[in-house]
Amino acid sequence: MRLSTNRKMVDNVRENTVRSIFEQGGTVVNGWLGIPSSVSAENMAQANWDSLTVDLQHGVVDYQTAVTMFQAITTTNTIPFARVPWLGPGIIMKLLDAGAYGIVCPMINSRAECEAFVGACRYAPDGYRSFGPVRAAWYAGADYWQHANSTVITMAMIETQKAVDEIDEILSVPGLDAIYVGPSDLALSIGCKPGFPPEDKVVDVIKVIAAAAKRHGIYAGIHCGSTAMGKEMVSYGYQFITMLADNAFLAAAAKKAVAEMRDTESDTGKQSGPY
Amino acid sequence: MRLSTNRKMVDNVRENTVRSIFEQGGTVVNGWLGIPSSVSAENMAQANWDSLTVDLQHGVVDYQTAVTMFQAITTTNTIPFARVPWLGPGIIMKLLDAGAYGIVCPMINSRAECEAFVGACRYAPDGYRSFGPVRAAWYAGADYWQHANSTVITMAMIETQKAVDEIDEILSVPGLDAIYVGPSDLALSIGCKPGFPPEDKVVDVIKVIAAAAKRHGIYAGIHCGSTAMGKEMVSYGYQFITMLADNAFLAAAAKKAVAEMRDTESDTGKQSGPY
Amino acid sequence: MRLSTNRKMVDNVRENTVRSIFEQGGTVVNGWLGIPSSVSAENMAQANWDSLTVDLQHGVVDYQTAVTMFQAITTTNTIPFARVPWLGPGIIMKLLDAGAYGIVCPMINSRAECEAFVGACRYAPDGYRSFGPVRAAWYAGADYWQHANSTVITMAMIETQKAVDEIDEILSVPGLDAIYVGPSDLALSIGCKPGFPPEDKVVDVIKVIAAAAKRHGIYAGIHCGSTAMGKEMVSYGYQFITMLADNAFLAAAAKKAVAEMRDTESDTGKQSGPY
Amino acid sequence: MRLSTNRKMVDNVRENTVRSIFEQGGTVVNGWLGIPSSVSAENMAQANWDSLTVDLQHGVVDYQTAVTMFQAITTTNTIPFARVPWLGPGIIMKLLDAGAYGIVCPMINSRAECEAFVGACRYAPDGYRSFGPVRAAWYAGADYWQHANSTVITMAMIETQKAVDEIDEILSVPGLDAIYVGPSDLALSIGCKPGFPPEDKVVDVIKVIAAAAKRHGIYAGIHCGSTAMGKEMVSYGYQFITMLADNAFLAAAAKKAVAEMRDTESDTGKQSGPY
Amino acid sequence: MRLSTNRKMVDNVRENTVRSIFEQGGTVVNGWLGIPSSVSAENMAQANWDSLTVDLQHGVVDYQTAVTMFQAITTTNTIPFARVPWLGPGIIMKLLDAGAYGIVCPMINSRAECEAFVGACRYAPDGYRSFGPVRAAWYAGADYWQHANSTVITMAMIETQKAVDEIDEILSVPGLDAIYVGPSDLALSIGCKPGFPPEDKVVDVIKVIAAAAKRHGIYAGIHCGSTAMGKEMVSYGYQFITMLADNAFLAAAAKKAVAEMRDTESDTGKQSGPY
Amino acid sequence: MRLSTNRKMVDNVRENTVRSIFEQGGTVVNGWLGIPSSVSAENMAQANWDSLTVDLQHGVVDYQTAVTMFQAITTTNTIPFARVPWLGPGIIMKLLDAGAYGIVCPMINSRAECEAFVGACRYAPDGYRSFGPVRAAWYAGADYWQHANSTVITMAMIETQKAVDEIDEILSVPGLDAIYVGPSDLALSIGCKPGFPPEDKVVDVIKVIAAAAKRHGIYAGIHCGSTAMGKEMVSYGYQFITMLADNAFLAAAAKKAVAEMRDTESDTGKQSGPY
Repeated sequence: MRLSTNRKMVDNVRENTVRSIFEQGGTVVNGWLGIPSSVSAENMAQANWDSLTVDLQHGVVDYQTAVTMFQAITTTNTIPFARVPWLGPGIIMKLLDAGAYGIVCPMINSRAECEAFVGACRYAPDGYRSFGPVRAAWYAGADYWQHANSTVITMAMIETQKAVDEIDEILSVPGLDAIYVGPSDLALSIGCKPGFPPEDKVVDVIKVIAAAAKRHGIYAGIHCGSTAMGKEMVSYGYQFITMLADNAFLAAAAKKAVAEMRDTESDTGKQSGPY
Repeated sequence: MRLSTNRKMVDNVRENTVRSIFEQGGTVVNGWLGIPSSVSAENMAQANWDSLTVDLQHGVVDYQTAVTMFQAITTTNTIPFARVPWLGPGIIMKLLDAGAYGIVCPMINSRAECEAFVGACRYAPDGYRSFGPVRAAWYAGADYWQHANSTVITMAMIETQKAVDEIDEILSVPGLDAIYVGPSDLALSIGCKPGFPPEDKVVDVIKVIAAAAKRHGIYAGIHCGSTAMGKEMVSYGYQFITMLADNAFLAAAAKKAVAEMRDTESDTGKQSGPY
Repeated sequence: MRLSTNRKMVDNVRENTVRSIFEQGGTVVNGWLGIPSSVSAENMAQANWDSLTVDLQHGVVDYQTAVTMFQAITTTNTIPFARVPWLGPGIIMKLLDAGAYGIVCPMINSRAECEAFVGACRYAPDGYRSFGPVRAAWYAGADYWQHANSTVITMAMIETQKAVDEIDEILSVPGLDAIYVGPSDLALSIGCKPGFPPEDKVVDVIKVIAAAAKRHGIYAGIHCGSTAMGKEMVSYGYQFITMLADNAFLAAAAKKAVAEMRDTESDTGKQSGPY
Repeated sequence: MRLSTNRKMVDNVRENTVRSIFEQGGTVVNGWLGIPSSVSAENMAQANWDSLTVDLQHGVVDYQTAVTMFQAITTTNTIPFARVPWLGPGIIMKLLDAGAYGIVCPMINSRAECEAFVGACRYAPDGYRSFGPVRAAWYAGADYWQHANSTVITMAMIETQKAVDEIDEILSVPGLDAIYVGPSDLALSIGCKPGFPPEDKVVDVIKVIAAAAKRHGIYAGIHCGSTAMGKEMVSYGYQFITMLADNAFLAAAAKKAVAEMRDTESDTGKQSGPY
Repeated sequence: MRLSTNRKMVDNVRENTVRSIFEQGGTVVNGWLGIPSSVSAENMAQANWDSLTVDLQHGVVDYQTAVTMFQAITTTNTIPFARVPWLGPGIIMKLLDAGAYGIVCPMINSRAECEAFVGACRYAPDGYRSFGPVRAAWYAGADYWQHANSTVITMAMIETQKAVDEIDEILSVPGLDAIYVGPSDLALSIGCKPGFPPEDKVVDVIKVIAAAAKRHGIYAGIHCGSTAMGKEMVSYGYQFITMLADNAFLAAAAKKAVAEMRDTESDTGKQSGPY
Repeated sequence: MRLSTNRKMVDNVRENTVRSIFEQGGTVVNGWLGIPSSVSAENMAQANWDSLTVDLQHGVVDYQTAVTMFQAITTTNTIPFARVPWLGPGIIMKLLDAGAYGIVCPMINSRAECEAFVGACRYAPDGYRSFGPVRAAWYAGADYWQHANSTVITMAMIETQKAVDEIDEILSVPGLDAIYVGPSDLALSIGCKPGFPPEDKVVDVIKVIAAAAKRHGIYAGIHCGSTAMGKEMVSYGYQFITMLADNAFLAAAAKKAVAEMRDTESDTGKQSGPY
């Protein structure tokens, strides 16, 4: 009988390579999934992203579909993350049980909110996550539960003036691994226009957040509208760079093809950009 | 090459004709969708309703299905609304991002609840809605975000004695556009029987709510069990009249057909009626 | 420990009450499901039809959804039938395995087609149905396979002039239980307009088919646009009477409600009618 | 015309046989559904469980799928329960409207949480459940709403040290019918290892909880890893015994078959086990 | 009461603008949908294609999903087409009933196959399409059935040497509107490599097919790997130009973004290309 | 930037380890998937089967669901197979495009049928498979199409007396890799009872088939009801051994648990068995 080479049978937890890249000072190239389909997810996963984030907030995706997208991502070595619609233990824990190796939580504006978020991602005694990691154990191995608290990445979104004002309180919550900046919400919050590239006033705050993260030993991520913006953000200290989203890629490519065939100008440039 | 006539390419926001009818003093004839299917939704949308409300509370519908129902409604000029299961920013914002042009929120019983509800529907500085209107921008146009706060209709359900007691505090919340009455919950709350037509005691409260809405310049809507009730409600000042629901239509028609074929009496009349 | 009252544990096959009604000379009141949803199916099933036919031909339904609709029907005593998209062993056998107690097969225009159809519904030696009745055994009991050939109803659609011309050859195929008339296809085939009520010329052929069925000891069914038409068809000898369809009920009720609220005339009457 | 024997037409509410078994001092044998499929649900329902709980917390199941699973369960006499992802009125009420005859709510750690939970399950004046039982009325009959408060079983999970500390306050909440123990969360909470069979220290607390339940006239349920554990728990006074879960059954059987065919030892025994 | 502006109420059939562009000698810019999602379909539909073809052959799409994709396309003026998996009346008629305004049928290699294909798309007396256009009537108007035979476009794929050998017999089938070339299958058939751009030997055959189509007054379409190829094909007389597919757009954009962020070269160029 | 370790980027085709085991004279332990869920599929895939066959014939599974099940299987090293509902090029090619590495085709009863089957699985010049391996290229690598004809396993079901009579004609079709025996259909065909273990008369034919396969250098597989039967079949020369099915595992485990808890005897033993 031939040897089993199934990775899942190995008796220790799957490495969270996003954390490894963070620790080695590298840059995580993160893709973003807003189309609710395991097929588009696998399509994207073929591009060799370090991580792919299933977006249950502004993406058109709900939990049941997200599970199939995690499965699609798991056909590659790319690490699955999820953004939850809002802070709430139910959906956070369901996505962790489904195998998310990182949770991005929107609108963390106070220390209390950050504690509630991080606690939902950690088993006792570090938090209040409930036990039952069915798919997570398939994804990560039978020892998952013993290593989950140090494996799963908690990523709080800093995207309002209030969050910036209270950033030291927020970033000092034990168990918080990283923050994530939503430039559009941040822009709206300080009276600027959402979209990419962000206005200078927004960039200034983005730098402030990076500095705070560095001060607290917290990794920083951000949503970007182009690779140029991504590289600029790396230069500010951001290590987790999201490139637009599947639906934005599809829209731009389709509009470009139609415009070229009709010899008209695409309106892609006019887009104010999502997130 | 032929001219593009695709409405979506026009560079301003789609009109919320429900608001226009409200402002012109007309009556919105609203349909109600509780069957979780884009096909029954399109079927209903063919009937030329002014608006159709996807019911995620008592309807058998969840977010992922609701998106396909919004798409089905968008094949016509009918305006899509949604009722959320309960007050909560996550689901409200997801449905707005999916293109809902009005949100009906159940059980608003205090000013604080009403503020939380309205804030979730409005971008800063009017509220705390997070930015990322992917499908909403497809539905409404690229300028959607600039006009969303004045386009989207916020509709708080007044359906308990407590809400009636605090109605002036609730109705004076800035940004609240309309209220919606659930006669059955209102009936239970004041010790009456749910169902249609409402008992006289319930009708009295329905009139009180209409008067309060008028006093505050707030539009009023209500769930009705028949066109007779609908017309009566119009006479009380209600401008947004819901006719039962898809599943109630289907049940009544099916039972009538079976009874006629068997020459028995349908039990349709016995129905206590849901909403 | 309390007694098990689960019907499924009883060790003999569930009765096909459609066959029983046929044999007793009664009339089967059959509903029709074209909306692809287990919820609308259960909604319809509450109306106490004798049978409900999931329509995979002109209904907007495919196999995977049909299974959930069979499950919904099984919450009542109503008997599940299916109409297949076209003559083909794959889909016929899949629907039988899923628990259909009758198969309506469109466009049977020759003896060879009828033999292919009936054979697909019968285990050897009576036919060539492949063995594997997973859900059918849940629905009908562990003994299903032993009684399937005499339980499942085969219903060939007679809906063209060619089929009428060859009706004696078709109706004498062993194992054929019943025929089903599609008045619209029949109308098109003989140069008439589709829709309800059928033109006189179509009704004449409908009577011819009934007579042929009687001659061969074959039960007859037909699609009807109203209970009036249904009763007329009973008088011609039809014992399986379909009343429109779920989507037609929904359309009519919705248009009527909108028209009444607007004091306009519904366009329901203008409908040319489906099937 | 044949007599209608459809159960749904009977004009009173369907009996909650779980409550009946409780009252007669019997043991409810409860199955657990974590696979999101109406087919696996019907498969399980064929096994004649007293009740089946659709797990929306650690199961890979969301609301829309849960509805189809309830329909599948309704093809038998087994009683449908649901575990919600977390305490929240929206999802509790949606599942009740979908026909759940019992709600298991995780992590009830205080009297206030228990009151919020029970209130969400009861119509006024006993609670604040909103009215609109569409599928529940199909499942239970037209009189459902009049009997719902005394029919639906409320089951609060006691699974932390804090809950044990406050157990008398929690168990004295009016309208609470039962408690349910999650041994793994309880284990984590008191510094033990999750999984089956529970360590002695965990068993001690399990006995303490049973005693408290008995003191308050509250029924007790618990998640078990084997029939041996189940019978032990019955001896402690537990009357609602859950046997693992569909996915655990499937995993064990598959690994056993593979191991036997390869003459290797299955790793089933190594499993730490979820619930 | 405000005026109805719903397009569907107008009492004549919706124009097939693809046919109009053909007749005016213009070029149809056609998009291609292989991702099984109504959301990616609507995303693509925003790009203002003249038509969008849902691919049920090599796309990862089946009928039930295709319906939701047609609904998504119907939110714009883009015309919906479908490619069927293989020649067969069941699926062709189902897609027409679902509102497809054109059917692309693979592997038409003989006159008999072409007749079977065209006949399935036409009502009697022109063909043998069965009557029941439920969604088609929603999409196209109540008069759909009277105009369907002259509205729906039949497009036979010419993609083998055998088809080229018998092209005059194939193209003279009455009711055939257009042909469609699959360059990869054509390449394989004549011993060349599949993919884009096609080898010279394949281009030669592509020109031969165009000439035959012109000779018979049949419109010609072709699958293209780039806008450059598309324009070349227009110069050969092709009027229906497909640009790759949604999944190919997504793959290229994702790989480009990842490569740019990593300063490596994308492997997009290495792609052998699909269809 | 860390090294890419994604397997998919490697530029040659994924090994079909089932073929390798065949060639090395080993035994393939094959699981069977009839529950339509990617979650139960991944659950099964965790058990380290050599291959898993998604059953679209007697399983409750259709194409769209099968794709998600293939994705779930691809999270492990287990090789995905599919059984098609019936011989037909459309569904065979769709499943190959979706990544199936083997196709089991029911009811191959003649050389012509076998040729039609094998041809549908092979690109020209070996067959008539159409080109467009979207997901197959994700699964197998960009070079898939060049190696597909020698990678994909064709497995014809021999399950009738007629097939046995014509076995030499069938097995000599070029490109046929293997045969698969369905003992229940074979039993019915020769007048025996379906189910496991097969009657002696059936076993005799099973041996005859094995001998014929050996004579033609064709690999042999068979559906088994127990590991005992599986090992017996290995002794006859069968190298591809299927162990029941997911739904059979689930049913047996559930019935056993219920029986043990109730101290009654399970009716598992009474099951006549599927396929």
